[in-house]
Amino acid sequence: MNIDGKPYRTIWLADDGRTVEIIDQTKLPFAFDVVRLENCAAAATAIRDMWVRGAPLIGATAAYGMALAMREDPSDAHVKASAETLLATRPTAVNLRWAIDAMQALLLPLSPNAREKAAYMRAAEICDEDVAICSSIGDHGLSLIHNAWEARGKPDRINVLTHCNAGWLATVDWGTALAPIYKAHDAGVPVHVWVDETRPRNQGASLTAWELGKHGVAHTVVVDNVGGHLMQHGMVDMCITGTDRTTAAGDVCNKIGTYLKALAAHDNGVPFYVGLPGPTIDWTIEDGVRDIPIEQRDTAEVTQMTGRTADGGIGTVDIVPAGSASANFAFDVTPARLVTGLITERGVCAASKVGLAGLYPELAG
Amino acid sequence: MNIDGKPYRTIWLADDGRTVEIIDQTKLPFAFDVVRLENCAAAATAIRDMWVRGAPLIGATAAYGMALAMREDPSDAHVKASAETLLATRPTAVNLRWAIDAMQALLLPLSPNAREKAAYMRAAEICDEDVAICSSIGDHGLSLIHNAWEARGKPDRINVLTHCNAGWLATVDWGTALAPIYKAHDAGVPVHVWVDETRPRNQGASLTAWELGKHGVAHTVVVDNVGGHLMQHGMVDMCITGTDRTTAAGDVCNKIGTYLKALAAHDNGVPFYVGLPGPTIDWTIEDGVRDIPIEQRDTAEVTQMTGRTADGGIGTVDIVPAGSASANFAFDVTPARLVTGLITERGVCAASKVGLAGLYPELAG
Repeated sequence: MNIDGKPYRTIWLADDGRTVEIIDQTKLPFAFDVVRLENCAAAATAIRDMWVRGAPLIGATAAYGMALAMREDPSDAHVKASAETLLATRPTAVNLRWAIDAMQALLLPLSPNAREKAAYMRAAEICDEDVAICSSIGDHGLSLIHNAWEARGKPDRINVLTHCNAGWLATVDWGTALAPIYKAHDAGVPVHVWVDETRPRNQGASLTAWELGKHGVAHTVVVDNVGGHLMQHGMVDMCITGTDRTTAAGDVCNKIGTYLKALAAHDNGVPFYVGLPGPTIDWTIEDGVRDIPIEQRDTAEVTQMTGRTADGGIGTVDIVPAGSASANFAFDVTPARLVTGLITERGVCAASKVGLAGLYPELAG
Repeated sequence: MNIDGKPYRTIWLADDGRTVEIIDQTKLPFAFDVVRLENCAAAATAIRDMWVRGAPLIGATAAYGMALAMREDPSDAHVKASAETLLATRPTAVNLRWAIDAMQALLLPLSPNAREKAAYMRAAEICDEDVAICSSIGDHGLSLIHNAWEARGKPDRINVLTHCNAGWLATVDWGTALAPIYKAHDAGVPVHVWVDETRPRNQGASLTAWELGKHGVAHTVVVDNVGGHLMQHGMVDMCITGTDRTTAAGDVCNKIGTYLKALAAHDNGVPFYVGLPGPTIDWTIEDGVRDIPIEQRDTAEVTQMTGRTADGGIGTVDIVPAGSASANFAFDVTPARLVTGLITERGVCAASKVGLAGLYPELAG
């Protein structure tokens, strides 16, 4: 999407056609730093230190990490060592493993001198495939936003609430939850986004607000407590969030707090949609509340807050009394009964076994 | 309640029997500073600059402000001027006006030389009356917690979730929502409190966590997004919040985000109680969602965060991108249908016209 009028992806090749460039997302929204990844070790650092985040972008960075590795040394030993290095950065990331497995399966059967070119080609394909998936999610979601806008008589503003960041920064381009919003904006639908702050890591107030602002999409940041009040008073036309994992029955595991917004949407008759790429559906699980383990993260994310200081630097303050315990559950599960529809690259379906099986007949059990 | 084992109220007379002492609550939880109020102007500053907050404590401080004024000059002119000075500090605070009206009605008929003594006596009574009301709320709420604990077979821990700060710091002692918790703790019930951070002003993470910790009540700070997940997984036995204004039909206007927790409680069969003094019931309104105007406050509360810096000072950081709009709705309304019961100084009743009329027959229409 655009940054101040100039189109970007989250990962791209530099002018030399070999060096990989990314945005250091840990510095957003306070600084826009492009980082050059010259070798596989740099790609591993970018993933491990979360300069890049979001499953699709992590996978794309790992793929390019393998390409950089082939440029350094295309031997069998280096293919395997590089795969291990990259995999160790975030061992639980499913997309990371998928991308590295795909690259190894491609490269090892080739002669070493053919590997560099093939690796760069495949990495570019992986990026393009992600862009195509997200663009399709956007097209299907655009219809929903456009129809809601028309049904309301094309008012000056159609309001979408989102939680966390499922935008282009988490993918290669377009995003998942935000793809329909960008498509609507680009199509001239006057979309305005309520951006949940998304404590404790503030991905809404930092990343979502930043990327919407840079592309020129009207938006307002609110604390996570506000969405219910907005929906009670007709100030939200629909909610769209992303998801980390969707069960075969349509339960949605997403950033902590998503469930509360889905409850408020249900209580006020506001449609609640979830944007997702088909590959994030977990066909082995049905009951998400019962069967998805919820990660607990470092409580420093709760007790400290980082931002821009008065002198323009970046500072951190403690906000919880010394001696008070804190807990940091990272995700929650929204039961399918609260989800109006799932927006996938193949179309929109009900959040149910039947709905998902209709779109993914080859995968549904 | 206790601070490190020593009992405190939020307002008291110094050893000289005339100077008024309060806690500067703007410094909590990072510093515990007792401030001496030597005259009426100091009391006005304490109210205006929010060193004291919470309707009952504001009223008590205003009453003592009038007593301090009588010590300075007991003339009719000074009674009236002091009342105006105090009233101008927070013109919309209902309790402030009530306390000042009560003091004027008492003082003006008296001869000037009788006013100082009478004013101190009445200010002390106003404090004691508030403590009695809160203590009664605590006794009635204690039964609910104790019964829930017994019904569950007296486990090691009974979990109460609260939002914002309706503790002793907002009253003269005991608090409203927290009074039942202190009573339960003091009675040996092993109560543990989930403390919602309560963005944007963080009254939970700062004030509630601090006062519970100082009294020795087990508690865990969580971000506002977490409560739904906790309730889905049986980790909350009941919710208790305070309220700024309760309608004659039992709708509850309280800190923004309360409605979301009530929805989650309802969805998971968790009892949701509200602690309130009878005087905060607004008998003129029934439909709170429709008829209670919601204050919008300075957006700097959303875009900035204040806390303790690494060097031990207090610092503020910006957390929203420059150029992003933000909105700051301060309260929301929880419909009576989501409230299990109202805990008042006269007992526990259903959140309904009939329930409230049963406890307050002389006030119900």
